[in-house]
Amino acid sequence: MSEQKEGDHSAHAGRSVEEFKREREALNEIVLKHAGLQMKRFFNLDTQSYGAGALPKKTKELLGLVASLVLRCDDCVLYHLIQCRELGVTDEELGEALNIGLVVGGSITIPHLRRAFRSWDEMKKMPDKQPQDK
Amino acid sequence: MSEQKEGDHSAHAGRSVEEFKREREALNEIVLKHAGLQMKRFFNLDTQSYGAGALPKKTKELLGLVASLVLRCDDCVLYHLIQCRELGVTDEELGEALNIGLVVGGSITIPHLRRAFRSWDEMKKMPDKQPQDK
Amino acid sequence: MSEQKEGDHSAHAGRSVEEFKREREALNEIVLKHAGLQMKRFFNLDTQSYGAGALPKKTKELLGLVASLVLRCDDCVLYHLIQCRELGVTDEELGEALNIGLVVGGSITIPHLRRAFRSWDEMKKMPDKQPQDK
Amino acid sequence: MSEQKEGDHSAHAGRSVEEFKREREALNEIVLKHAGLQMKRFFNLDTQSYGAGALPKKTKELLGLVASLVLRCDDCVLYHLIQCRELGVTDEELGEALNIGLVVGGSITIPHLRRAFRSWDEMKKMPDKQPQDK
Amino acid sequence: MSEQKEGDHSAHAGRSVEEFKREREALNEIVLKHAGLQMKRFFNLDTQSYGAGALPKKTKELLGLVASLVLRCDDCVLYHLIQCRELGVTDEELGEALNIGLVVGGSITIPHLRRAFRSWDEMKKMPDKQPQDK
Amino acid sequence: MSEQKEGDHSAHAGRSVEEFKREREALNEIVLKHAGLQMKRFFNLDTQSYGAGALPKKTKELLGLVASLVLRCDDCVLYHLIQCRELGVTDEELGEALNIGLVVGGSITIPHLRRAFRSWDEMKKMPDKQPQDK
Repeated sequence: MSEQKEGDHSAHAGRSVEEFKREREALNEIVLKHAGLQMKRFFNLDTQSYGAGALPKKTKELLGLVASLVLRCDDCVLYHLIQCRELGVTDEELGEALNIGLVVGGSITIPHLRRAFRSWDEMKKMPDKQPQDK
Repeated sequence: MSEQKEGDHSAHAGRSVEEFKREREALNEIVLKHAGLQMKRFFNLDTQSYGAGALPKKTKELLGLVASLVLRCDDCVLYHLIQCRELGVTDEELGEALNIGLVVGGSITIPHLRRAFRSWDEMKKMPDKQPQDK
Repeated sequence: MSEQKEGDHSAHAGRSVEEFKREREALNEIVLKHAGLQMKRFFNLDTQSYGAGALPKKTKELLGLVASLVLRCDDCVLYHLIQCRELGVTDEELGEALNIGLVVGGSITIPHLRRAFRSWDEMKKMPDKQPQDK
Repeated sequence: MSEQKEGDHSAHAGRSVEEFKREREALNEIVLKHAGLQMKRFFNLDTQSYGAGALPKKTKELLGLVASLVLRCDDCVLYHLIQCRELGVTDEELGEALNIGLVVGGSITIPHLRRAFRSWDEMKKMPDKQPQDK
Repeated sequence: MSEQKEGDHSAHAGRSVEEFKREREALNEIVLKHAGLQMKRFFNLDTQSYGAGALPKKTKELLGLVASLVLRCDDCVLYHLIQCRELGVTDEELGEALNIGLVVGGSITIPHLRRAFRSWDEMKKMPDKQPQDK
Repeated sequence: MSEQKEGDHSAHAGRSVEEFKREREALNEIVLKHAGLQMKRFFNLDTQSYGAGALPKKTKELLGLVASLVLRCDDCVLYHLIQCRELGVTDEELGEALNIGLVVGGSITIPHLRRAFRSWDEMKKMPDKQPQDK
């Protein structure tokens, strides 16, 4: 990540995929400590929604990705990008999915699109642990 | 559409799929009369984004559908539902895609979800012109 | 509702509270026919979230109302208004809650605010079935 | 409005500019009956924000229009269109402003763009009462 | 905050409640230097809206909190959390209010929910200056 | 930017205008590497939309600015602020435009308004390279 560190002081910008994963895990612990039964049910539901069914997991992660892009949530975009990478989504597939998000959601999504592609680039340079799941 | 007319005075609620299509066409004529070159380019881009590529058309329409649901646009949801129907999306596939939209976008999407399922029901009762594409 | 019918052809505008309830019920039947297990769980969770707990039901309905106003969903606003009315929310309490929604969400919420007050007015003229719950 | 009435049962779609004005006025009366001091101050502030200053009224109405388009509020779009018409905004100026809204806000704004152009068309056919203000 | 500092380079993530307060104050000075009369009126209105009235301050802050969560503004969420803490909101009350925000706003609010609970945790470890409730 | 660095660890907060420009450029390179033909067309369209036409460039940048504020995108706000500064927008014009964004979009835009004014302040202290364009 070193080349991204310079001239790149923005929060999301300077956060590597690994840092995001660690932060997410740490925060999830705090959330679970506070979460009541209903909140825990929501989290379960959230996880279940992306499981394989009539639609393959890959399609579902792309759906989650594009929904996150048009709603402009960097953390959500990055989470689904990680899943997409693990499920073997190709550059072309990713580009077409994000393009739909861009057209539907407009230029206001561009800063998120930029950060999405940078994280994708970063993941492609990491020692490969995928694809394992489908 | 007669059974939907009673007790159903809301705009979107009382509008049949056929009425939507006619209205959309009529309004598109007005838009094209006013649209400058840039706007026309945007419309072209919009159409092209859903063409087959690395991702099949069906996946792209589902992406457009879920993006439209989380952004809560009835007209956009209905437009993509029509495309999904023509491309042979099954009830199960539709249900799973809309469920992702519901979980990502929350209960605020429920009124749109209701109208989406009603339009889907309505299309299933129409003389079948699909599937033709895929 | 007769005095609202003239000069009032907009969907939400012309729909009475009773019509809304009937439509909502009819559409819920269609949704439940289509909903898979996960969607049904979401609906249950949605209902449970407004049950009495550390916060009274009335406060929770006001939370749902203001969230619906800032997200600008007429159907959701009307649903929570009906609950608020049944739980004995006063005019003053309603006005203060909606004012917070207006200040947080801005003038873009005003059309929804208008329709909210009209529905409230309409409910106040209906034969009283509240307050029963607290 | 007769030619718009056929095949056009959607709420916003079937509502003429004059009907919108009447409905808006009627609802404003209801709102003012309920509004507390703070809400009334907000309404005053809203009105004042569009008064002439360092920026001309026309520019301010275009700002309100584009903000309303990207936030996808038909009533707000129509309100600012009426002001724009009265202030002598030309077809070309309108088209360029709406195009910026379309590019920033994406294809999800298209249904609102369609209805905006239809209302504009409708206003251009009405007996002219503008331009009077600048 | 020390344990949160490592592996936590995101903006909101790494910013303590005290840092937020200092930054907010510094920026408010800049804003007030630039703000015209109308903007200042808006800020006053904003402050007044959360004063005690028919609804207690605590309820109003919870309304502001949930509205901020569904609109996904970290700064606004944190501001209202601080108020809630000072007004003696309990863990259970907070959990139920945030849960309504989660259900209404969907999984897209989860990153904000995480940061909200972390800030709450942080405030609970600070030397206590509450409750003083009004 | 040194005085902003202390007590200011938030991403957007601590990022200077120059840092933003460098980051934006670096990320644009990554995007262009990944962007397909459709995405590139969108970027072209985005650029073209702000060119002079029936409306002057300055008005168009103000439209982009206010649209960005009500949609609450810091990067987009800052981008248009830079353009506004280069086109000679005055403090008064800026204040009136942002005020419209505040009133339309509500108090949820205030954190973005704060950062907008800080960046404006920062640009005013920089060696002047404007106005060059109109």
